[in-house]
Amino acid sequence: MDIIKLSSRQEKIIELVKEHAPITSEQLANKLNVTRAALRPDLAILTMTGILEAKPKVGYIYSKKPSYSLIYDYIMNIKVKDIMSKPVMLDENTTVYDAIVYLFLNDVGTLFIENKGVLTGAVSRKDFLKIAIGSSDMHKIPVGIIMTRMPNIVFVEKEDAAYLAAQKIMEHEVDSLPVVERSYDESNNEILKIIGKVSKTNITRLFVKIGENK
Amino acid sequence: MDIIKLSSRQEKIIELVKEHAPITSEQLANKLNVTRAALRPDLAILTMTGILEAKPKVGYIYSKKPSYSLIYDYIMNIKVKDIMSKPVMLDENTTVYDAIVYLFLNDVGTLFIENKGVLTGAVSRKDFLKIAIGSSDMHKIPVGIIMTRMPNIVFVEKEDAAYLAAQKIMEHEVDSLPVVERSYDESNNEILKIIGKVSKTNITRLFVKIGENK
Repeated sequence: MDIIKLSSRQEKIIELVKEHAPITSEQLANKLNVTRAALRPDLAILTMTGILEAKPKVGYIYSKKPSYSLIYDYIMNIKVKDIMSKPVMLDENTTVYDAIVYLFLNDVGTLFIENKGVLTGAVSRKDFLKIAIGSSDMHKIPVGIIMTRMPNIVFVEKEDAAYLAAQKIMEHEVDSLPVVERSYDESNNEILKIIGKVSKTNITRLFVKIGENK
Repeated sequence: MDIIKLSSRQEKIIELVKEHAPITSEQLANKLNVTRAALRPDLAILTMTGILEAKPKVGYIYSKKPSYSLIYDYIMNIKVKDIMSKPVMLDENTTVYDAIVYLFLNDVGTLFIENKGVLTGAVSRKDFLKIAIGSSDMHKIPVGIIMTRMPNIVFVEKEDAAYLAAQKIMEHEVDSLPVVERSYDESNNEILKIIGKVSKTNITRLFVKIGENK
C-alpha cells in the first residue's frame, strides 16, 4: 500500500494554507522564515499530490480532493468480507405471502432463494410490492415464480473489494448483492453457495465508519 | 484542525507498536487475538494519518510526526447539496394505490408528502408493502393515513455534511432523508420546505465516486 509521507514542514505548510488561504509562496516563506527557493520542492510535492492547489496570481489553497492514490488505496483495501452481513434465505417453494412475512420478521430488503444450499434466485421488496398490488393470490404463488433467477443475479465473492460491490450495486441498480463461494460438483459444474450479502446499507455503514475512524 | 478520534483498538495497536517495533501485522493480529483482515482498516488509518509507518518486509514502527487525516477532511467537506437528488412528492390525499403506482413510475423507494409545499410526511416501500398484504382497500385509503408524519421525520439541510446524512440514515434505520429549507410564517412558526433527498443510494454513489476520484 502506497502511503504518502509528509515532512513536518509540509504539514506546517498545509496548516498555514488552511488558515490563510489563498496565500502566496512568498507569504508562506515569510511565515516559515525560509527562502522561496527552499519551499519550492515542498510546494511541488503538495500540489502534485493534489493536497494543495496553486491558483495563478492568487496563491495556494487547500484542495478538497486529496491525492488519488491515498483515497483509492484505502478504499480498495476494504474487502467484501470486512463489511458483509448475514444473508436471509428461503426455499423457492415458499409462498409469496409467507416470504413477505419472513422479509418483515428479518427486517431486510432482499431475500435470497436457495435450493439445497445453492443460490438460485433473489427477490426484493420492490418485486413483492409489484405482485402485492396485482390481483394474484399471494397465498398460492411460490416465490420462485416472481424471483430474479440465476444466471441473472449479480454477485461478489468475499475477497473482492467492497468498492467493487458498491460499483455493481450502482451499475445494476439493485439494493443488495449475494456474496458467494464457488465450488464444483462431480460433473465439474460450477456451484454457487451463498455465504453473505452486501447492500447499500452495508456501504452506508462503511462510509460512516470511515469517517468515525473505526 | 479536525481532531481524529481513535478507537480503543487503534490505541492498543499504537501501544503495541511503540513497545515491540518493528512488528508485523501478523504479530499484531496474534497479540490482539484477531485476524489480520480485521486489523487492516485500523492499520490503514494509522499509517494514513502518519501515526504508524509501514516498512516493507520489516513491519510497523511508530512515527513521531502524525499528519492530517486527509480522508477525514475530505469526507467532512462533502455536503448534502453535493450529493442530494430530486425528491418525489405527493399530496397526502392521494390514495395508497395511486401512490404506489407513482413510486414505480418514478423508480424511487420513498415518497415525501407535502401540503402546499410544506413537508408533512414520508412513506416508504416498506410502509406500502405492509398495507398491501393486509385486507385494506388501497384504492380508498389516502396515503396520509399510513405515512410517517412530522415531527417524526429525520431530515438534513443542504449545507450539512453528507457524512451527517449517512449517520442519520444508519442511526434512524431509514432509507432516505428529506433535505429541507427552513423559513418562518407570520406567527413565527417554523416551516420546512422540501428541496431534495439523500438516500442510501446517494451515499453508495458517493462512495463509488470517491474511488473514481470524481
